[in-house]
Amino acid sequence: MKIHKSFSDIGMSKIVEISEKAKVIAPEFEKKTGKPLIYFQRGEVGYPTAPFLAEAFKEAIEKGHTKYPKPGGEDFYKDAIVSDLYTRNNIVLTRKNIVAVYGGQEGLELTFAIFRGKTCSAFTPCWSCMFDNIIPYTEMNFISVPLDAKDEWSIPWDKLEKSLSSSEIFYFNSPHNPTGKVFSVDDIKKIVFLCEKYGVTLISDEAYKGLVYKSHHGEYSPLQTGYQNIVSVNTFSKIFAATGFRIGYIASPREDLIDYLTRGNYTETAGVSTPTQYAFSKAIVHPDRPSWENKYWDEMHSRAQCLVNNLDSRFNVIAPEGAFYCFINVLGKYANKLAFMGSESLLIQTLLDKGIAVVPGSAFGKEFEGHIRLSFSTLNKELIEEGAKRLSEII
Amino acid sequence: MKIHKSFSDIGMSKIVEISEKAKVIAPEFEKKTGKPLIYFQRGEVGYPTAPFLAEAFKEAIEKGHTKYPKPGGEDFYKDAIVSDLYTRNNIVLTRKNIVAVYGGQEGLELTFAIFRGKTCSAFTPCWSCMFDNIIPYTEMNFISVPLDAKDEWSIPWDKLEKSLSSSEIFYFNSPHNPTGKVFSVDDIKKIVFLCEKYGVTLISDEAYKGLVYKSHHGEYSPLQTGYQNIVSVNTFSKIFAATGFRIGYIASPREDLIDYLTRGNYTETAGVSTPTQYAFSKAIVHPDRPSWENKYWDEMHSRAQCLVNNLDSRFNVIAPEGAFYCFINVLGKYANKLAFMGSESLLIQTLLDKGIAVVPGSAFGKEFEGHIRLSFSTLNKELIEEGAKRLSEII
Repeated sequence: MKIHKSFSDIGMSKIVEISEKAKVIAPEFEKKTGKPLIYFQRGEVGYPTAPFLAEAFKEAIEKGHTKYPKPGGEDFYKDAIVSDLYTRNNIVLTRKNIVAVYGGQEGLELTFAIFRGKTCSAFTPCWSCMFDNIIPYTEMNFISVPLDAKDEWSIPWDKLEKSLSSSEIFYFNSPHNPTGKVFSVDDIKKIVFLCEKYGVTLISDEAYKGLVYKSHHGEYSPLQTGYQNIVSVNTFSKIFAATGFRIGYIASPREDLIDYLTRGNYTETAGVSTPTQYAFSKAIVHPDRPSWENKYWDEMHSRAQCLVNNLDSRFNVIAPEGAFYCFINVLGKYANKLAFMGSESLLIQTLLDKGIAVVPGSAFGKEFEGHIRLSFSTLNKELIEEGAKRLSEII
Repeated sequence: MKIHKSFSDIGMSKIVEISEKAKVIAPEFEKKTGKPLIYFQRGEVGYPTAPFLAEAFKEAIEKGHTKYPKPGGEDFYKDAIVSDLYTRNNIVLTRKNIVAVYGGQEGLELTFAIFRGKTCSAFTPCWSCMFDNIIPYTEMNFISVPLDAKDEWSIPWDKLEKSLSSSEIFYFNSPHNPTGKVFSVDDIKKIVFLCEKYGVTLISDEAYKGLVYKSHHGEYSPLQTGYQNIVSVNTFSKIFAATGFRIGYIASPREDLIDYLTRGNYTETAGVSTPTQYAFSKAIVHPDRPSWENKYWDEMHSRAQCLVNNLDSRFNVIAPEGAFYCFINVLGKYANKLAFMGSESLLIQTLLDKGIAVVPGSAFGKEFEGHIRLSFSTLNKELIEEGAKRLSEII
């Protein structure tokens, strides 16, 4: 019996692997040193889930929203999204442009599956799950377009254009995991222009939409450009600190693609949990949402600042403008030291042994060996400060 | 831009299509005739969701089970299943043999995807979603093994053996949709023996496990035979009357397959909703479950009896032994009348116009044109009686 290669090629997430290792090591480390192990590796949201969401969930059960969902999503869920897109981003869409999915993960997996076996280009560093899961599972070819680490993650336009000329889709993610970069409106318009020029469908991963720090220019979705060949993939995991609920949506001006994605979602799961859809339809338009969000984002911003202020400047620190991540170069002029350590995996193990769990740069693209991703979403400022200092001492 | 054929080949469920049509027609029909439209087409469960499940759901939220699930499923969820399989079916498995999925649908889609492009055989009539969704989406070849409608849906053993000799997987479903047949222990053992003989993996769809009427010999899972190459796909949709929660599990002695399925589930959805897993882990072992189930199954059994007692004997009625369905032949000696109607779709439309929504036989295999599936799960006995009588009058 032969396993299809789409299965044999997928790996479990490196982030999950490191998390599991860290859990095992932590008790001994903490006993031996009297210090906490610092979890810089997690993409989990270390902030309490929105309380009005929990209430809406109980209401869903009380009102009996317990039977089969409508294929593609309940009208009340789609209506809340349509209203939210208009209010927040001035995007005009209808129910026919929306499909409910199990978070950004299913949104991306389904969208990529439509293009099975074709070619995708994307900026690197790029969310590790694309390499470990989505791309092998959908048997895509991948073209890497590395952002310039020496110039605030700026876009290599020539390389981008060349890659688009031989791609069917371009995967784009802003706010960006793992760098925390928020691409400017001008950059987004120029990327969209190039996609249009080469007939490329833009897959816009907006998992961190809204998680943009006040100091920045605000959020802007590629959908706002008016380009038709955009599939915008969204999740409520991060913006409601509700990663366990597994719900999001896909929005696209292309009603035909939404129709295919609806069929795909129905085929894979028979639709998104009805009570979950009900709960989020209430939470999305809840009057407490704006004030709750402001507090949550302020907290994340202050964690970001704390990390940047405490990181050693040797690490080529580019301050994150959104999301929960900072992607630093621990190789830099200390190349010899990493070379002495022998390999990236030895570096990661050394850091772990000294009480810091991080994700290696190569998980986000092989060009980024020597970088590490620090996630500050689960740590309070005291731990962030201690982690940053410990990092300087080790390297 | 070319859509991959796995998407362009899938259709929306014929059952959903007929349900949508019925909804549109119903108000006018009811106004004109003063009689209710009778929904014999639905696979929905017309019985209140278990109340102890709703309570467990609220508890999940109160206890804060709102963050990322563990890949493959939470330990507490797997433990409840392991215990349930042992208590009810004397099946001994461990956490390593279980993966949480979004209902039977994701369970089957993932399992079939492992064998993408290979050959599957199955008894027909066969659940329509296999033809509309799962098989085209996973690009499988399909071999039909028609059950004998003239002999209580008995198995054509020669044909079965021939089909297994050129198949990688065999899809098996008992209690059976759409006939309501419950295969005997002897039949199941013989099927497993033949799968073993030809190295075929048995995909056992146990969506209606437990929904076996008292008069019958009870439930028996192929897993009880001890054969290793079995993937048992289970959902809690039907047994808790909770179709909207979208949760189930896959159980298999093959730990390597469970590992692949875990990766597949992680890739598609990043795992099953954490609060949902918590709620079901409580509901599965809840002390109120047995008494609630007895009442629910008694009600379904009495609906089945009511339908069978009121159906015209001309229709070759084979009494269902489990699940919610009865699959009858409205062609029979009245072939001329159907021929006069011109086509199956005209028959279905005629029935709909006269206030009866049913699913056409061909949705379950092209050999079964002239049959219709009656689902009695959403109707009370008064409506079942009226529907059965109306059917006799029309045909």
